[in-house]
Amino acid sequence: MNTVELMRLFMEPRSVALVGLTRSTGIMGWNVLEHLLKYGFKGKLYPVNPAADEILGLKCYHSVKEIPDDIDLAVILTPRSIVPRLVKECTERGIKAITVVGQGFADSDAEGKALQAEMVRIAREGGARIVGPNTFGTANAFINFNSAYVQMDMKKVPTGIICQTGLFFGGLPKFPILGKGIDIGNACDIDFSDGLEYFEDDPEVKVILLYIEGMRDGRRFLDVAGRVAKKKPIIAIKSGQSEEAAQATQSHSGSLAGRDEVYDAAFRQCGVIRVTTAEEFDDLSKAFLHLPLMKGRGVGIITNTGGGGIMATDACRRHNLDLAKLSPESSRELDAIAPPWQDFQNPADIWPPSMISGHPLPEVIRTTVETFLADDNIHGVIMIMPGFPLQYAPILFDPVVLDIKFEKPAVIWLYGTDVEGLASWLERTGKILYYPTMDRALNVLSRLNQYYEYLNRDDDR
Amino acid sequence: MNTVELMRLFMEPRSVALVGLTRSTGIMGWNVLEHLLKYGFKGKLYPVNPAADEILGLKCYHSVKEIPDDIDLAVILTPRSIVPRLVKECTERGIKAITVVGQGFADSDAEGKALQAEMVRIAREGGARIVGPNTFGTANAFINFNSAYVQMDMKKVPTGIICQTGLFFGGLPKFPILGKGIDIGNACDIDFSDGLEYFEDDPEVKVILLYIEGMRDGRRFLDVAGRVAKKKPIIAIKSGQSEEAAQATQSHSGSLAGRDEVYDAAFRQCGVIRVTTAEEFDDLSKAFLHLPLMKGRGVGIITNTGGGGIMATDACRRHNLDLAKLSPESSRELDAIAPPWQDFQNPADIWPPSMISGHPLPEVIRTTVETFLADDNIHGVIMIMPGFPLQYAPILFDPVVLDIKFEKPAVIWLYGTDVEGLASWLERTGKILYYPTMDRALNVLSRLNQYYEYLNRDDDR
Repeated sequence: MNTVELMRLFMEPRSVALVGLTRSTGIMGWNVLEHLLKYGFKGKLYPVNPAADEILGLKCYHSVKEIPDDIDLAVILTPRSIVPRLVKECTERGIKAITVVGQGFADSDAEGKALQAEMVRIAREGGARIVGPNTFGTANAFINFNSAYVQMDMKKVPTGIICQTGLFFGGLPKFPILGKGIDIGNACDIDFSDGLEYFEDDPEVKVILLYIEGMRDGRRFLDVAGRVAKKKPIIAIKSGQSEEAAQATQSHSGSLAGRDEVYDAAFRQCGVIRVTTAEEFDDLSKAFLHLPLMKGRGVGIITNTGGGGIMATDACRRHNLDLAKLSPESSRELDAIAPPWQDFQNPADIWPPSMISGHPLPEVIRTTVETFLADDNIHGVIMIMPGFPLQYAPILFDPVVLDIKFEKPAVIWLYGTDVEGLASWLERTGKILYYPTMDRALNVLSRLNQYYEYLNRDDDR
Repeated sequence: MNTVELMRLFMEPRSVALVGLTRSTGIMGWNVLEHLLKYGFKGKLYPVNPAADEILGLKCYHSVKEIPDDIDLAVILTPRSIVPRLVKECTERGIKAITVVGQGFADSDAEGKALQAEMVRIAREGGARIVGPNTFGTANAFINFNSAYVQMDMKKVPTGIICQTGLFFGGLPKFPILGKGIDIGNACDIDFSDGLEYFEDDPEVKVILLYIEGMRDGRRFLDVAGRVAKKKPIIAIKSGQSEEAAQATQSHSGSLAGRDEVYDAAFRQCGVIRVTTAEEFDDLSKAFLHLPLMKGRGVGIITNTGGGGIMATDACRRHNLDLAKLSPESSRELDAIAPPWQDFQNPADIWPPSMISGHPLPEVIRTTVETFLADDNIHGVIMIMPGFPLQYAPILFDPVVLDIKFEKPAVIWLYGTDVEGLASWLERTGKILYYPTMDRALNVLSRLNQYYEYLNRDDDR
């Protein structure tokens, strides 16, 4: 069985044994079966609990050995001490994919480390592979499957994550990231590379996210990630950068954090886009799903406020972007609508052309956006505007979003107190994405450029 | 007339002449008078427009010279060419405070620069002072006054800003910052130091914000800011850091941006808290208004997710904070509720004590928060939790917020999709402030420490 076939058992199981399933239900019942029934999972479910004959209306087996049918995936939910015995029973039953949920293995004391080694040995001997331990397991919103014992929102978004924490399993604020998820936890067996090979040709996943605490086989990761990154953007957080965090890593997933600069170099080599914070998962997923790549570093800034234009210019510098110098043709077009004393260039303060020269604001916005998108020196656009009540959205932006072709990425930062209506309206047009801070908007442009540069770099390097 | 008395004419005018007031009203009418009537400004208003006898029901004068009463403040709203003549009329009328709104002065061409110099000369000769040009002027929510020609939301929050852009006059998202505002625009006369002296002993202002593009008299600023910063936190953005931004600064407010490292050193010397982004104005205003200062760099991390704890440890490093080492007493108290194999310390992963040891989650949260706040090595706390539906807020947090005294700052980052309800509930308790990202939460702790260190540093330094 190759890696992808194996990973399908974890990600697209048709039959799942829930070994050590609790009889508790409801809030804080942590009952996986209850959640799966709510999600509407259509595969077969086999509760296993030696002390129950039925749970939530389903026949309960006292051991996996009693289950009469084929089982794609076993999820072991018991305390640590009996896990090796249960893994053994699973392999004897012919199960090839096993998720071990519990904590207290390599993430804890010597006894836990020994138990983890023991269960891996048993699985190997029996021809099975393990996700975990210390994990929520796997999730696939497209088939309403999620082995987490915490109930979650799932949305069919084309984003897949491989992580070592449940933190990213529930979707972050604003943007649901969980289309498919693999929490490899302590990663005693299944590792990042296995997950990447599964996502590599998966048509349901267009953007891949990684949350890494440590890694066993760096060589294989370089090979696999370098191959996959040519097909889909891979965005990664590597945590445990500081010494203290590296210690905490050891007690969280039993991983060795490794030298940070080694990861930096490795990611650069294989085209993985390294990010620092959780909200960058949100921001970049949204960007890579909806915006074109940025084919150069030149930014055009369109602003309603001179101060905002200056702050954005500073922010371009912070994000490794350049303030684009307009072509002479663009300059002429913009000068035509500006007051004679204004040097109307980039950043383009659209206020004087409207307030002083008397051109309607929608016309000024349209002219500026169109000129900027047509200018070869500009590879991406950021707009800075105050929030407007929703009813102004079509007045201000219809001429822009209806008539202009956006072949370069465009982002907007809206300031002031009335932001949400206009922001949602713009996002629904699919042409200009809203970000709640200027730095997040420019970080997005920067990363769209970074990935473009990776795809187009000289392969001999 | 001393500076504070003069600034009162701009900030607390009892009578205002609106010179060159438009007869247009409604949306895009840019009619200051219309806005002031809506806000409910109680002072006297004198429209001045040679082509009108009445605007919005008020008698309109053809010149300031015709106004029979004393005038505290004149707001000149005309195109640039006639401004020097109107300033002259104002001084002849005995007006001491003049706001010049229009653009096209030092922010533009040679003619504009000459016009600006001319009007300053006339004002000086006539004993008047000028705010602007290129400005929204002044705003004071406590008396419903705002000279901006754009209609704004105003809230009586105890925050004052001195800026060179209208960007910050309308309040940023989530947190309204405009209690009082002074947009000094091109700062041809009234400068940051004048505004600081006004805010210095103003009981309505507890936090001062500055947005600086350039500055004329650095020596006076050092003196005044150093004095004021001992009384109230001063938070500043200095823009125009990059060369390109410095050029844009010249055409926005006619300011020379100056060398960035000089500002850095000056701010450090006089205790001004330098920040980079607009949202830090929101974040830090909220923090300085509601949280105690942080009397050391030791952070306690309480988390529902091991991954979150590791990421927060990395983030502490980024924000010049330390992961606190627990006292032996604290360690004993926490060990008592953890599973035997867990090294339950800092960052404190509260999941195993609840999930494995079976202690109710509210009890675990309470014990951890109480232990952390009592530990002398911990000077501030960050919590990391998933969002919960609002009805769980009192179940989870009542034992914490009702019984525990918070003499150290506590912030929370909530992840997942159901965040808003719990966030608002926590903020209403006034004990734990919510921030939408982990880095923003830790930046707040860092700045609360930075200001504490300034207030307590050796004055001989």
